[in-house]
Amino acid sequence: MNVVVVSSSRVGVKTETATKKVAGLIQEHYPEASLTLLDLKKLDIAFSDGRNYLDYTGDTGYVTKTVMDADVIFIGSPTFQGSIPATLKNIFDLLPVNALYHKTVAIIMTAGTPKHFLVAETQLKPILSYMKANIVPNYVFIEDKDFVLQEIVNDDVLLRLETLVENTMVLARTYQEIWRQQEESYDF
Amino acid sequence: MNVVVVSSSRVGVKTETATKKVAGLIQEHYPEASLTLLDLKKLDIAFSDGRNYLDYTGDTGYVTKTVMDADVIFIGSPTFQGSIPATLKNIFDLLPVNALYHKTVAIIMTAGTPKHFLVAETQLKPILSYMKANIVPNYVFIEDKDFVLQEIVNDDVLLRLETLVENTMVLARTYQEIWRQQEESYDF
Amino acid sequence: MNVVVVSSSRVGVKTETATKKVAGLIQEHYPEASLTLLDLKKLDIAFSDGRNYLDYTGDTGYVTKTVMDADVIFIGSPTFQGSIPATLKNIFDLLPVNALYHKTVAIIMTAGTPKHFLVAETQLKPILSYMKANIVPNYVFIEDKDFVLQEIVNDDVLLRLETLVENTMVLARTYQEIWRQQEESYDF
Amino acid sequence: MNVVVVSSSRVGVKTETATKKVAGLIQEHYPEASLTLLDLKKLDIAFSDGRNYLDYTGDTGYVTKTVMDADVIFIGSPTFQGSIPATLKNIFDLLPVNALYHKTVAIIMTAGTPKHFLVAETQLKPILSYMKANIVPNYVFIEDKDFVLQEIVNDDVLLRLETLVENTMVLARTYQEIWRQQEESYDF
Repeated sequence: MNVVVVSSSRVGVKTETATKKVAGLIQEHYPEASLTLLDLKKLDIAFSDGRNYLDYTGDTGYVTKTVMDADVIFIGSPTFQGSIPATLKNIFDLLPVNALYHKTVAIIMTAGTPKHFLVAETQLKPILSYMKANIVPNYVFIEDKDFVLQEIVNDDVLLRLETLVENTMVLARTYQEIWRQQEESYDF
Repeated sequence: MNVVVVSSSRVGVKTETATKKVAGLIQEHYPEASLTLLDLKKLDIAFSDGRNYLDYTGDTGYVTKTVMDADVIFIGSPTFQGSIPATLKNIFDLLPVNALYHKTVAIIMTAGTPKHFLVAETQLKPILSYMKANIVPNYVFIEDKDFVLQEIVNDDVLLRLETLVENTMVLARTYQEIWRQQEESYDF
Repeated sequence: MNVVVVSSSRVGVKTETATKKVAGLIQEHYPEASLTLLDLKKLDIAFSDGRNYLDYTGDTGYVTKTVMDADVIFIGSPTFQGSIPATLKNIFDLLPVNALYHKTVAIIMTAGTPKHFLVAETQLKPILSYMKANIVPNYVFIEDKDFVLQEIVNDDVLLRLETLVENTMVLARTYQEIWRQQEESYDF
Repeated sequence: MNVVVVSSSRVGVKTETATKKVAGLIQEHYPEASLTLLDLKKLDIAFSDGRNYLDYTGDTGYVTKTVMDADVIFIGSPTFQGSIPATLKNIFDLLPVNALYHKTVAIIMTAGTPKHFLVAETQLKPILSYMKANIVPNYVFIEDKDFVLQEIVNDDVLLRLETLVENTMVLARTYQEIWRQQEESYDF
């Protein structure tokens, strides 16, 4: 099972803190998974120019291929101007149509205020749906006040992150089983 | 009146064709306006890193300052993965909160299929609202089949672009008048 | 100027309280306006069955005709199940396509938690846009904690309601002037 | 497995035709399921007044209890004024918070034009998410031109309805298994 955790903010440390926590939980509870953490702050990624994702080189090619090889993706996203940041949208733009087909995708959203709560629902999920992702319904929403320095200090948030990781991994395995059965049934 | 037309696609020529048409209409009917066409395909723009928009240099600084100085913005956007492209979202990310306050913003959206019609309504308008733009309600939606080479061949689309330009300029002038009166009324 | 204020909740008193406040502000500052308050809790309205709006009788016909005759509509809406209530959607369903063309529409939304803040933006505005309303961009969002019994106790909310009423009336008059000029220009 | 198919239009026959087709497919392929077809055109349902769903009587009580007892719900919805009809939203308003928890929900949407394609994604899914439904990601979108009289004449639509029924039933069974295991693991 290839698991990719994406930290998509280039500003501040909250998304990074949350995604590192998620990566730690995956390592602890699913040591057999092959885990990759993509921190977009540390990568030099080009804007999509319409090329096939395999034709990008350097960090851009590394990211597109890593995401395309994933079975499970945890997307950590800040809220910028009432939506997801360009850095995250760009990853999607670099990928082909239906790129998330047969991939299970979970969302961790950080924001300065609870008024942004629905951004994941209305701005991010429709994109993931269009790309045919198998979306984990419940997302974890973390506010500024849940962080102190580079730590999450709200126990409820920590519990919800644990639940998200567990639900996502169970769902991913279940879907893989369904897809395997469906493919077999088409095979004769 | 500073009018900025943004062509936000780095792929293909449809958004470019549509925005050039809009720029031509503005020049023809509003020769007194100061018009700038920003073609994001030809500019080398950095991802937002949280800096103040005045601190960016090169093409990035040129674009942020040009947009901040605008009274009217025509946004030409393609549809990528069921939403606006990262190149466009990045312009918003580079700008401060409330950056579009007292700016009138019109939308020209291109897409491969009518199924994308609501993307402007549900993905772009909420961002513009958050940034306090004065949004021109009707947007012009142009499908692939309305273009032949680098020309718009659908007369209805051409008419709607003319109407959009006229309505936007009338609205912008009217709002400026309202805002001027409001400021005066607060001035004593 | 026909002004209609719609209180669209049949549960509790918060939407009613907010819309009564709005109606009071209109009477005070725009005594020349012809004002109607439609409280959907007190009216017996049928579900739309596809009939022409003029063919409904009783309360249903009264509401459809009153809304169609309005120049300005203030919509007071609670948040039910993450969206607007059926009682409000039904008013829209009873009306023809483009029913809100040349009408200026303002929104007052009540909710139990700030997490519902974007419901007006993503659930209500797209419907109003589809119906061709001239939407007042900023809406007033009021939380449960802003009410004590049947009164609004948050001064900031009261100020925002005053601003909403003023902005809406100014916008409505301005648009009417624009539309009058446009019609005259087509008249030869 | 309690399966409920809801036909939520009171106007025309397209939603009714599509949901009858779905009900027929369920009977044919899942004869062991307990199937109920709720045609809102034939039921006399009251607007929600905030009561507990068990306290409604007549058709209203019948519908709320039937939906609450469902394991799987197929929602057939027309597009009215750019969203779902009031008749459908009212069913949701009649139910408690989290009413769709542990229920699998599939969507069949009819519309006059492909421009309405995203209504299910942006207007219906956020409500179902809020109510904690387990949403089947792909919905079937049927246009007017796919119907002749009271029949669906587009083979691709028929195939997609078959796939929807199959996927929904497989998903529902899989989720029930997951939920059963989770409950057992909490049981000691």
